[in-house]
Amino acid sequence: MGVVIPLSGQEAKQASIEPLLDLTSGDMGRVNEVILSHASSYVEMIPKLATHLINSGGKRLRPMVTIAASRMCGPCEGRAHVLLAAAVEFMHTATLLHDDVVDESNLRRGEPAARMIWGNQASVLVGDYLLGQAFKMMVNTGSLECLRILSSAAAVIAEGEVMQLAAQNDVTTTEDAYMKIIDAKTAALFSAAAEVGAAIVARPAEEQAALESFGHNLGVAFQLVDDALDYSGKQALLGKQTGDDFREGKVTLPIILSYRRGSDEEREFWKSKLQGGRQEEGDLEHAISLMEAHGAIKDTMERARHYGTIARDALAIFPDSGYKFAMIEAVDFSIQRAF
Amino acid sequence: MGVVIPLSGQEAKQASIEPLLDLTSGDMGRVNEVILSHASSYVEMIPKLATHLINSGGKRLRPMVTIAASRMCGPCEGRAHVLLAAAVEFMHTATLLHDDVVDESNLRRGEPAARMIWGNQASVLVGDYLLGQAFKMMVNTGSLECLRILSSAAAVIAEGEVMQLAAQNDVTTTEDAYMKIIDAKTAALFSAAAEVGAAIVARPAEEQAALESFGHNLGVAFQLVDDALDYSGKQALLGKQTGDDFREGKVTLPIILSYRRGSDEEREFWKSKLQGGRQEEGDLEHAISLMEAHGAIKDTMERARHYGTIARDALAIFPDSGYKFAMIEAVDFSIQRAF
Repeated sequence: MGVVIPLSGQEAKQASIEPLLDLTSGDMGRVNEVILSHASSYVEMIPKLATHLINSGGKRLRPMVTIAASRMCGPCEGRAHVLLAAAVEFMHTATLLHDDVVDESNLRRGEPAARMIWGNQASVLVGDYLLGQAFKMMVNTGSLECLRILSSAAAVIAEGEVMQLAAQNDVTTTEDAYMKIIDAKTAALFSAAAEVGAAIVARPAEEQAALESFGHNLGVAFQLVDDALDYSGKQALLGKQTGDDFREGKVTLPIILSYRRGSDEEREFWKSKLQGGRQEEGDLEHAISLMEAHGAIKDTMERARHYGTIARDALAIFPDSGYKFAMIEAVDFSIQRAF
Repeated sequence: MGVVIPLSGQEAKQASIEPLLDLTSGDMGRVNEVILSHASSYVEMIPKLATHLINSGGKRLRPMVTIAASRMCGPCEGRAHVLLAAAVEFMHTATLLHDDVVDESNLRRGEPAARMIWGNQASVLVGDYLLGQAFKMMVNTGSLECLRILSSAAAVIAEGEVMQLAAQNDVTTTEDAYMKIIDAKTAALFSAAAEVGAAIVARPAEEQAALESFGHNLGVAFQLVDDALDYSGKQALLGKQTGDDFREGKVTLPIILSYRRGSDEEREFWKSKLQGGRQEEGDLEHAISLMEAHGAIKDTMERARHYGTIARDALAIFPDSGYKFAMIEAVDFSIQRAF
């Protein structure tokens, strides 16, 4: 704690998530209703645990992307886009529940993780329940194309999590291998969340592909910023401790860059501290000082900016609209939240 | 060990699973190919863990039910029925992986449970992966009706597992509450496995409902026989230890009946041994002797026979065929395997 890295970087202007929040607020109200009604069950523990997680302050960025993408693509009659957005959030929530079990996390968004209150067992099973509910919602849209997109994402996400598990504690992970992991683990759901927006209003393949690319690159940027934030004082504002990734031996890009750019002695430090060795007081501070010395956090942010630019360009084929501008500003916001 | 209960009961003739195995063997060969190809992944741990479980001697009863049901209902061109059968087996496999984590089981079909080799974390994530693959296969059939049936089952199964978790160690669970648990936890997948057989060849609602009922009652009977078998010497043949449920504090029907029919002193025994108290040598033998005294295992089998009869009657509306007879004999076999 108390370790604050000033993430130096000058964005042209302060981007805001407000336009996206405003434009989607009506639909998101309906999404919340669907979420609450589908998290209910006559089995008491399910709504308790699900609402704990759902109400614990997530930004709902993924379902907002689905809503904005479908609204940008055309008129949305009925509630198919709302069902898809809720399904996306349920998939995300199920992943969080299983992630916390796999990572043995104690906190989630500053609150005790569900597994700390209800146990690992309930977290595994309620995650499964939410995933089942997500597929039921997708079926209710009647869109096989959306089912295809989201079921593929579900398999890819799990694949990414297994990859991450195998790479855990391995400081020799290459940047390429790491990018593959976050492609699967994080970007696949953002990508699907955006793509179904076009699919549900039956837009041409070109627009569907553009939104897939938008979501994917936004997701990669989002994850890289998260990785950088874990070593920044800003974390406290997000309800996380600084250095959680370090303590859990999670090898993310700031570590990968520091390891590659470091001296033999430094590499020994990374190996001993992340590959099962005991961590002591001062280790996190030392790790951050090495990251600073090698520009690892700054360059992680540079990589994030690179993907953010691609996400913005992906939307260029769409005619200008409030939704388009709000989505572009959301990309900038996702990157600037690190500052 | 060495505790063998002669499950007294005289079935008219020895039923066999062979006719079902024979009739479905061609299709099941194709199911196996689909299973192996979808369990593959460039993430090494996934096929390793999945094939460990898939090859470890499961009877594949659920996918065989899907194949036989669809073949009984009409000509099956293409491979939709094969994809559905594989999806059903993947859903089942995913459930087993998560179950072993939740139950902290050490063995699965006589082999070390996957979690003992690869860890709980991989078991959770590979389960998620297989579930995602299952949905991808369903999507590939193009049948929204089958997707509806199987996604509902997925949510119900998870609901049943949470119910079971909440009821764990609670010897005061009523028979009705227990039946609800196995309806959800076991019968829902058998029911869906049979129902999609009719749905995929677009048979009328009456036939779909008949197969739903067949599968449901077969599933209940199957689970009750499993519960009885856990206290019988036959277990060793199935690669399980006698009394696993007792040791894990799993309250199943033989215990529920013994508890209700027992004296105050006996109820104290059940409470102390299943609700967190220490189990000692001789406890399992004592538990079994109480079950015998109260006819709890015999009556569990009677209940199973009751559901088996309903399953058989559910098929009566179908014209006679080899598939129909094989499915009926499979019900009898599922019950007689306890003898």
